[in-house]
Amino acid sequence: MPVNILFAAKAESWADYETPLRRALDAHGLDYRLATEMPPETVDYIVYAPNSEVQDFTPYTQLKAVLNLWAGVETAVGNPTLTAPFARMVDDEGLTQGMVEWVVGHSLRHHLGMDAHIVNHGHVWQADAPPMSRDRPVAILGLGALGQACARALTALGFPVSGWARSAKTLPGVTCHHGADGLGAALSGAQIVILLLPDTPATENVLNAETLALTAPGAFVINPGRGPLIDDAALLAALDSGQIAHATLDVFRTEPLPKGHPFWAHPQVTVTPHIASETRPDSAARVIAENIRRGEAGAPFLHLVDRTAGY
Amino acid sequence: MPVNILFAAKAESWADYETPLRRALDAHGLDYRLATEMPPETVDYIVYAPNSEVQDFTPYTQLKAVLNLWAGVETAVGNPTLTAPFARMVDDEGLTQGMVEWVVGHSLRHHLGMDAHIVNHGHVWQADAPPMSRDRPVAILGLGALGQACARALTALGFPVSGWARSAKTLPGVTCHHGADGLGAALSGAQIVILLLPDTPATENVLNAETLALTAPGAFVINPGRGPLIDDAALLAALDSGQIAHATLDVFRTEPLPKGHPFWAHPQVTVTPHIASETRPDSAARVIAENIRRGEAGAPFLHLVDRTAGY
Repeated sequence: MPVNILFAAKAESWADYETPLRRALDAHGLDYRLATEMPPETVDYIVYAPNSEVQDFTPYTQLKAVLNLWAGVETAVGNPTLTAPFARMVDDEGLTQGMVEWVVGHSLRHHLGMDAHIVNHGHVWQADAPPMSRDRPVAILGLGALGQACARALTALGFPVSGWARSAKTLPGVTCHHGADGLGAALSGAQIVILLLPDTPATENVLNAETLALTAPGAFVINPGRGPLIDDAALLAALDSGQIAHATLDVFRTEPLPKGHPFWAHPQVTVTPHIASETRPDSAARVIAENIRRGEAGAPFLHLVDRTAGY
Repeated sequence: MPVNILFAAKAESWADYETPLRRALDAHGLDYRLATEMPPETVDYIVYAPNSEVQDFTPYTQLKAVLNLWAGVETAVGNPTLTAPFARMVDDEGLTQGMVEWVVGHSLRHHLGMDAHIVNHGHVWQADAPPMSRDRPVAILGLGALGQACARALTALGFPVSGWARSAKTLPGVTCHHGADGLGAALSGAQIVILLLPDTPATENVLNAETLALTAPGAFVINPGRGPLIDDAALLAALDSGQIAHATLDVFRTEPLPKGHPFWAHPQVTVTPHIASETRPDSAARVIAENIRRGEAGAPFLHLVDRTAGY
């Protein structure tokens, strides 16, 4: 009996993923059927994008697991019909590496003051060398796979990194804080703040008027995590007061960021169009195929969502 | 008898260096006199900036060594009166680390296509994820202390790095080429070209019409090395043809870059004001004090200039 795998995502994703998925499933020698439509009661696994048409999982009575194509599960985790094991995407080769490149790049951009050279209409030669990375404290909120990888890369470049997570963590070279009390310690004195938390009720507006006041004056905010982590009005006020010098934002409460949103025109805000980290079909397909192999072998699934925590 | 150390540089350097130098010399327990003026025939060591007033070394009859404050020695190496041992600055903590930060930052800036987001007057949301670093070949011309450190950092971030040096080198994870024949192999297919060669008669105009044609089409040129490494007219032509997409230049044949130079207004050129790597007083003072300690102990000096090679 072949394993029945339903691909439930937008049509353009099917074009990107069909070949890599077949290649990755074939590599495990699995006997499978992979299609975008099949009778719900026959489906063993759903490869899932939360914006697909599948929102009611009730008809999928034989479901062994739902395997998310993305890292973010906030729009699916509360779905009461999704009772099967549900795995997030943790794609070290694609998603994590892409995130490291984007986060390190924008951290160095702010650290080096590049914008003043990229746009220099006055042709001003002002030879002020930037400080060294060792004198530029960085705070990373969120120490999951993405936060840890960024912490490693920034530490390797000499930045002093403090991190904050829900539960206690130990990472070499990183000053780790946790829990409600630890947030202030992680932010205190930070000149670059990087948001890599999941979007849950507990993390909404984690950067707000109160916490934005804890950074070093003139700090940089970098958000490749999730839009709701920031209280937008509080960030705009902190930019206007100078407490925050610049914000580089890749994620927003509404995407694409609507025309006319104040972030677009604000001189201290850089908008990037949710490109910090994209699932890459080749590596993501290997992660999904590995989880299907595990399911068929009776081994535990990787990267299962903790429904209580919300991610 | 104290060791007599003359500090020969501009007055503002004295303000930056006096305290760090005394601290570093004291740390070795040396008995010394350090001043900006002393009778030439009593001087044991000159801490030297090539733009200082000291250009004729003939009166310094007891000179044990000249210790350069900077990495670049091109304006001093041909001085026929400078016959004492002459050391370059190799300052891993300051100069090398600063260079790594600047080179990695601008490499990632080009890799990620940041400029289109930093200046986006049309508020365009175009969600094209950049390629992965593993698909972005980098060529580093020059594999001295600076080139090697940049190669290590870029390799750690996933970039495939090829390097080119005068003589054969072996660096882990880097495809090394050397000699006249190797230059084409190093440049072939490179999407980012980084210049970290010394300025010598042999390296002048190493990037010219012929070699600029060897990179991948639409490559990025990053020059934190020395201005004369580039044939400016050939670079401008390659930018206009699209063979080179963008050049980020930190060094120039004349500095500050003169008002009206075509680099200032060219939309595909970013000028940074010779800030990629600056000697940092604390760490540079330790390097100089170590060489004086070696001289007094009869040990060989570090970082001696090879006058035949010119660096």
